[in-house]
Amino acid sequence: MEVFKNLTRTRVRYGETDKMGIAYYGRYLDWFETGRTEFCRALGKSFCEWENEGIMLPVVEAHCRYKSSLLYDDEIEIETTVTNLSNVSVIFTCKIFNLRTGKLAAEGYTKHAFTSTDGKLLRKGNKLLDWLNSNNVQ
Amino acid sequence: MEVFKNLTRTRVRYGETDKMGIAYYGRYLDWFETGRTEFCRALGKSFCEWENEGIMLPVVEAHCRYKSSLLYDDEIEIETTVTNLSNVSVIFTCKIFNLRTGKLAAEGYTKHAFTSTDGKLLRKGNKLLDWLNSNNVQ
Amino acid sequence: MEVFKNLTRTRVRYGETDKMGIAYYGRYLDWFETGRTEFCRALGKSFCEWENEGIMLPVVEAHCRYKSSLLYDDEIEIETTVTNLSNVSVIFTCKIFNLRTGKLAAEGYTKHAFTSTDGKLLRKGNKLLDWLNSNNVQ
Amino acid sequence: MEVFKNLTRTRVRYGETDKMGIAYYGRYLDWFETGRTEFCRALGKSFCEWENEGIMLPVVEAHCRYKSSLLYDDEIEIETTVTNLSNVSVIFTCKIFNLRTGKLAAEGYTKHAFTSTDGKLLRKGNKLLDWLNSNNVQ
Repeated sequence: MEVFKNLTRTRVRYGETDKMGIAYYGRYLDWFETGRTEFCRALGKSFCEWENEGIMLPVVEAHCRYKSSLLYDDEIEIETTVTNLSNVSVIFTCKIFNLRTGKLAAEGYTKHAFTSTDGKLLRKGNKLLDWLNSNNVQ
Repeated sequence: MEVFKNLTRTRVRYGETDKMGIAYYGRYLDWFETGRTEFCRALGKSFCEWENEGIMLPVVEAHCRYKSSLLYDDEIEIETTVTNLSNVSVIFTCKIFNLRTGKLAAEGYTKHAFTSTDGKLLRKGNKLLDWLNSNNVQ
Repeated sequence: MEVFKNLTRTRVRYGETDKMGIAYYGRYLDWFETGRTEFCRALGKSFCEWENEGIMLPVVEAHCRYKSSLLYDDEIEIETTVTNLSNVSVIFTCKIFNLRTGKLAAEGYTKHAFTSTDGKLLRKGNKLLDWLNSNNVQ
Repeated sequence: MEVFKNLTRTRVRYGETDKMGIAYYGRYLDWFETGRTEFCRALGKSFCEWENEGIMLPVVEAHCRYKSSLLYDDEIEIETTVTNLSNVSVIFTCKIFNLRTGKLAAEGYTKHAFTSTDGKLLRKGNKLLDWLNSNNVQ
């Protein structure tokens, strides 16, 4: 069975480019976030609702490899999967494709801890983890 | 007597430029924010502390005129004054100077409501207002 | 005859919120930009193409009134019109609606000069101006 | 002999926080950039000048581990070193310290290719590389 993956599209904004004329490297992490947000929505419950129920996902690690440049107004497709799920953390893996060129623009991942609203690590599992598991995300 | 004004300096970051090679117009509002933050600190109490005491300053209006371009790494000086203070709102006025060229880069203002932490308008005055008044900021 | 207006949708990103829990005031200018970009595309020629033909639209003035807060993941609709068109400048007017609440979140405008790639003001009209005029945008 | 390292300070801006009340994870990459910029300036020639001489440093890889949260207005110190220098690429390593708490807030690195202004990889060395080497940066 194939794992669940989410595809979502957006465009490179003018303000996301820099003086080199290409998308600034820091902005890709914002797109990774969009990917995670849409991943949860597509699975049936928005990340926003999870936060309202008291489960936070602060980022503990982020990594990105930049493969080919993105220009202003390029339409991109963000592909998001969960590649690692443990009692205390989850890794979302992202690929960003440039739909103008068909090329892979970047790939990377973010690792998140499960915490309560006041930042305490949830060590014994939690409802968001159960939900991801029950949806066979990996 | 001259009104209190604050001067603070920073540099244009790479990620704040856009494909035109100049600072992106939206980033000036971040610098206005830096100006307000340093204005309060210079007056003796950080804006952070005011928030911790339960007074928020959400922006209700922002305006900016762009006079001359800023390049990556240009050092800028942000000049901040209070130009209007009422029971329910305050206006911070900002000028941004390009220290490389000596030119005025932009000028504008932000208008803020005084609210409680839960967003309720403070209609009858508040301690932050009193403090600004007692410091003759306008 | 009604003037041309463009509607486009996006969502408030996590990174666009601030510690007040609402969308940061500076990010609205990025959404105004998205509105302008989609306005041109909807009219038949992307702003990107106009830039490639040597016409730039640097912002000379920006204004925004904030009417109601936007939360993370709120879907917004950006309504863009041209409200003033002269030989040397154009004003884009924007309204941002919160589709969750139905409320107007913000309204404002940006004024732009027509310039060449090297920043020279185009004083005698230009093809982008002609195109906007021929499309009865105001 | 100890390698050259640069220390530079800035503060967490309001717009760099998110609804969790802490600095957004994507903004750390902007601070890494500030670190690199000040590293070059401290060594005697601004990165801006290198770009003007035709050498660009596009990012090909970025990595960050988040160790402890940063709050609005926290003063941070960015420590930058060069940890790997080859004919075609350079790695800048960054640590971000929270001067309020004394804690390490994050550490990571960015890997950059040496390219010409038109994006061609400079395979046989270049003046920026020679300059870094001559300054014993690693």
